[in-house]
Amino acid sequence: MKPIDNKKRRTWWAVPFIAIIGLTLYGCPSQQNLAGSSDAAQKVYVAPGEHDEFYGMFSGGYSGQMTVYGLPSGRHLYTIPVFSQAPVSGYGYSEETKPMLQTTHGFIPWDDAHHPEMSQTDGVPDGRWIFINANNTPRVARIDFANFQTAEIIEIPNAAGNHASPFVTTNTEYISAATRFSIPMDEETLENQDVSISSYAENFKGTLSFIKVGEEGEMNIDFQILVPGFNYDLSHAGKGPSADWSFFTSYNTEEAHTLLERNASRNDKDFIAAVNWRKAAELVANGEGREIPAPHYRNYMDHNEQRAKSELVETVTVIDPIENPGIIYYLPTPKSPHGVDVDPSGRYIIGGGKLSSVLPVHSFEKMIEAIENEDFEGEVDGIPVLNYDSVIHAEVENAGIGTLHTEFDGKGYAYTTAFISSEVVKWSLETFEVVDRIDTYYSPGHLMIPGGDSMQPEGKYLVALNKITKDRYLPTGPELFHSAQLIDISGDKMELLLDFPTDGEPHYAQGIAADIVKERQIRFYQLEENNHPAATKTEADTRVERDGNNVHVYMTTIRSHFAPDNIEGIKVGDKVYFHVTNLEQDWDVPHGFAMLGARTAELLIMPGETRTLVWEPQKPGVYPFYCTDFCSALHQEMQGYARVSPAGSNVPISYGTGN
Amino acid sequence: MKPIDNKKRRTWWAVPFIAIIGLTLYGCPSQQNLAGSSDAAQKVYVAPGEHDEFYGMFSGGYSGQMTVYGLPSGRHLYTIPVFSQAPVSGYGYSEETKPMLQTTHGFIPWDDAHHPEMSQTDGVPDGRWIFINANNTPRVARIDFANFQTAEIIEIPNAAGNHASPFVTTNTEYISAATRFSIPMDEETLENQDVSISSYAENFKGTLSFIKVGEEGEMNIDFQILVPGFNYDLSHAGKGPSADWSFFTSYNTEEAHTLLERNASRNDKDFIAAVNWRKAAELVANGEGREIPAPHYRNYMDHNEQRAKSELVETVTVIDPIENPGIIYYLPTPKSPHGVDVDPSGRYIIGGGKLSSVLPVHSFEKMIEAIENEDFEGEVDGIPVLNYDSVIHAEVENAGIGTLHTEFDGKGYAYTTAFISSEVVKWSLETFEVVDRIDTYYSPGHLMIPGGDSMQPEGKYLVALNKITKDRYLPTGPELFHSAQLIDISGDKMELLLDFPTDGEPHYAQGIAADIVKERQIRFYQLEENNHPAATKTEADTRVERDGNNVHVYMTTIRSHFAPDNIEGIKVGDKVYFHVTNLEQDWDVPHGFAMLGARTAELLIMPGETRTLVWEPQKPGVYPFYCTDFCSALHQEMQGYARVSPAGSNVPISYGTGN
Repeated sequence: MKPIDNKKRRTWWAVPFIAIIGLTLYGCPSQQNLAGSSDAAQKVYVAPGEHDEFYGMFSGGYSGQMTVYGLPSGRHLYTIPVFSQAPVSGYGYSEETKPMLQTTHGFIPWDDAHHPEMSQTDGVPDGRWIFINANNTPRVARIDFANFQTAEIIEIPNAAGNHASPFVTTNTEYISAATRFSIPMDEETLENQDVSISSYAENFKGTLSFIKVGEEGEMNIDFQILVPGFNYDLSHAGKGPSADWSFFTSYNTEEAHTLLERNASRNDKDFIAAVNWRKAAELVANGEGREIPAPHYRNYMDHNEQRAKSELVETVTVIDPIENPGIIYYLPTPKSPHGVDVDPSGRYIIGGGKLSSVLPVHSFEKMIEAIENEDFEGEVDGIPVLNYDSVIHAEVENAGIGTLHTEFDGKGYAYTTAFISSEVVKWSLETFEVVDRIDTYYSPGHLMIPGGDSMQPEGKYLVALNKITKDRYLPTGPELFHSAQLIDISGDKMELLLDFPTDGEPHYAQGIAADIVKERQIRFYQLEENNHPAATKTEADTRVERDGNNVHVYMTTIRSHFAPDNIEGIKVGDKVYFHVTNLEQDWDVPHGFAMLGARTAELLIMPGETRTLVWEPQKPGVYPFYCTDFCSALHQEMQGYARVSPAGSNVPISYGTGN
Repeated sequence: MKPIDNKKRRTWWAVPFIAIIGLTLYGCPSQQNLAGSSDAAQKVYVAPGEHDEFYGMFSGGYSGQMTVYGLPSGRHLYTIPVFSQAPVSGYGYSEETKPMLQTTHGFIPWDDAHHPEMSQTDGVPDGRWIFINANNTPRVARIDFANFQTAEIIEIPNAAGNHASPFVTTNTEYISAATRFSIPMDEETLENQDVSISSYAENFKGTLSFIKVGEEGEMNIDFQILVPGFNYDLSHAGKGPSADWSFFTSYNTEEAHTLLERNASRNDKDFIAAVNWRKAAELVANGEGREIPAPHYRNYMDHNEQRAKSELVETVTVIDPIENPGIIYYLPTPKSPHGVDVDPSGRYIIGGGKLSSVLPVHSFEKMIEAIENEDFEGEVDGIPVLNYDSVIHAEVENAGIGTLHTEFDGKGYAYTTAFISSEVVKWSLETFEVVDRIDTYYSPGHLMIPGGDSMQPEGKYLVALNKITKDRYLPTGPELFHSAQLIDISGDKMELLLDFPTDGEPHYAQGIAADIVKERQIRFYQLEENNHPAATKTEADTRVERDGNNVHVYMTTIRSHFAPDNIEGIKVGDKVYFHVTNLEQDWDVPHGFAMLGARTAELLIMPGETRTLVWEPQKPGVYPFYCTDFCSALHQEMQGYARVSPAGSNVPISYGTGN
């Protein structure tokens, strides 16, 4: 359809609620827009010895991790431990990594990771870092592309269910976080939050958070904006003309607190919040806002000491829109919008109205005009509500049922997922008309085009991240991996190339040309730069020291032995710290360290790295330890023994190698 | 070469040790035996909507889990949680699954899973179960193909490093386990194991364990055989004529206890132990052997109550070969043999002499003859050592350097991996001559042909499980996934088709035709058969009950709400049990349950299933919970709140949904 003549606009979005519910049974599309099978096979095949063209960085969803896929092959290349313990490498079990999972609720071994988002320079992904949010216990993590490891995790206070996160501004000045579930807030004390749930409308509030990103990537909460007790769902920063703004969808503007599937689906429109983050930041820099108690942890990898550290931050600065007008406006948007996406030009703001029959496209230009004209239809808690008719630019018709997310190809087209009608719909940013559509198997949530939410998309592939799997792969019992589909978008018509299963539940993904990331990577850690307090850099320095009931083993590994590999003098009741330094200085020569009966995971130790495993033996005996990562032809010989004597025994500490 | 004329045989296996060490630098093969790229692409492409031909069941190695890949696509279809905590589903965190990880050393959240092995009937994989060993804290698990979940884990006492496990006899009468690391054993008391490591030769012993498998798959240790303090590395049962026997490789017959890479590589020959398990079992059934204290756990999923239970078994029966001759013999085998593999006819026993330049093939027929003739060259701890010359059938020359494992294609050929020369070598079971070889990238450990260690291999594909990855994929920092390579073995010449990365470190894998497994599967749990004590089968039965400081929430999930979804009356200091029953009765409709600040993982609850999360809130407030698995168009609305009041508060328990 054409851009809207506001006078003639009809309310397309009033889809009957019952119909939506009925469609949740997901009728399966019956035909596939398949590329010729032979053609598709060639397009996704990456021959042995060759590399994929793109890194696909997928959120793990309820795995809490980030998973790395090669595109177009769909191969699962790696899993980056982020918010959950990873027995496979000892992340969240080793002494060096446990601080990374510290929160004000204690050590939390799991979270629900939703949206990877790469750092940008001038609106283009730059391959430095990739951020990801924790939805359950609100946090944001930063992963360093240099080593594909989690470098930092910051907790978000005054929020619950951090879903609209962590989307970056065009020069990575800020990343977003927000309340999905509003909670009782008493700004003065923070203590008086024991209120009845039924007092929701009165006591529950939300916050939109702006996390400042430093030169080295370090994250600090610069300010939070107090907002009404809605649910905030997704966000995206503006670009180009709109680069100073960030946008957040909301639902549950009904402020329901029970049975939301019914009670939060009543209003015909909810809101997109438009935040002038640059103005808000200036206000805060000038002393506006209130510093309130809001304890939260910032955990970071100390690269010098090669171990994570936790620091508790006590306060946060909160801005109330009532006291600071001009920083936030609401754009009415049909109906329970989910995604909010800004096109590469920065001119259009698209809301994924999941219960709407049209896809609303707001105009940034019209929004600014309406703000200047004070063209408001009302106000909520100090936040002006703009007139829908004044800001809407187009309503895309026939964009599917249950529209959720939109990405862009940089060639003038947008691609939107429709969850209920199970399809991806391609439409024009000129005519706002649908030009192509392709069935997905089955209901897609997010979609991803490499660079597809930036100013410079690479419009070659699109990945649909589907929520329902059923019969797409060989069955694996009641539980199935979720399914992704790779679609060729290089031509006029979309072509389905490949189904590939995905670990956890990837909500969103980001893609980047491999060359950008490859260049920045390190392949092992320099031993001479390892300043871990327990690092042991030569075999001559290996030793075992007793300190009361703590026994510290300063151990090294090199193909194919441990030093020391015979240890005596440990007693029941001791806490034994194995500080293991991998002396290798070559790529892809990790060693593992496992101890029989240890109530923790193994250590997987990269070349040049030190990791610590704690062992509290329960009974006397001689216990073997060994290398878990097949490191050489004589890997099976890489073992040792630790003798445990009864408490009170007088066996002295002794140790050796190769006697 | 021809079968050996013993008189003329030369000692090919005396490879200088230093040369081996030098080769551990893994020179990279420079050419690839690649199938035409177009041809290979077609062969591995599984078009959207189609299914892979084979299930590949891969061990996760240091992930502790089992991973499922589709073949020929190489797609990662699923991960089965076995020995390690799995934050992704709550395995090892939920109350129902924690007992599965109980050991006599306490709750252990991790292990190192090495060898998947499918149940067999008449020597052919039957698709009922798949077993896998834990190498670190010795255990064996049984996974049910009906639901791809771990059904049982049994601990192995009197052993350390259970590596030569869990290989099945041809009708799954027994599965094997064994000491990799020998340990001090005092049969009488089991207490007096606090001995000096340097007394190894005197005090350290090993055991070979035979686990009996019942009709329903239940595992019990029937007996253990006392053996000298060597390292036992791998095993395989015989077949056909040799079906009553099992074979175990040993290394470290030097009985070194330090720097084994040097000290355990001195002997020119180590041993393959041949055990007549049927005879041993008869002896035990007739009251032979000694019952000794050997506490160990047997953990199993109670399918009626849908939760794991632990039972402690106090003793085990041990047979000493000195007292019970005729059950075990040693076959001298060059040099530090790793794998031991029996060909489909059951006539040949192949030892993977990892430091040997020839691949030794023993004859079962000659072995029996030598036993009958008492053709012994000596004896170790009551175990006769057969004459090498009397039992050897052939020495395959030019089979590569660092030969480890052999599988079979059922068409008269064997395929052996060579770790150091990085190749797979195909040789004839008629002529014992090498007929083809293909480079691998890089050093392969095990290899897998579907059914390739059974009496009925399906000789279409071979998977090489490589240990060194380096440049095979887009780099992911210092840590890389290990790499598998799919090779077409349907023709005379092997053809490399595909590289695919693998999660953890797959040591071994098994493959099975998809149809056999598909037929046996369930897609969801019947709600009416759920007899979990805390199951809540209708929304009307949902409730919250206080019992002292324990609060039990009997909760249900159905698209798209929890009942109850508002809970009050919880106090700081309470332990809250969320018993969540998923009322759905359809395939692929799990719901998740996550609680802000819970110091545990989420629950992922399959249809018809009940799972329990424990939450100990630390401070007053109102905390949201929500569904973590995108279940419907209104999934984002699937949430609730729990109010926590201070300890001593008089807020009564109350709850509701949809008020």
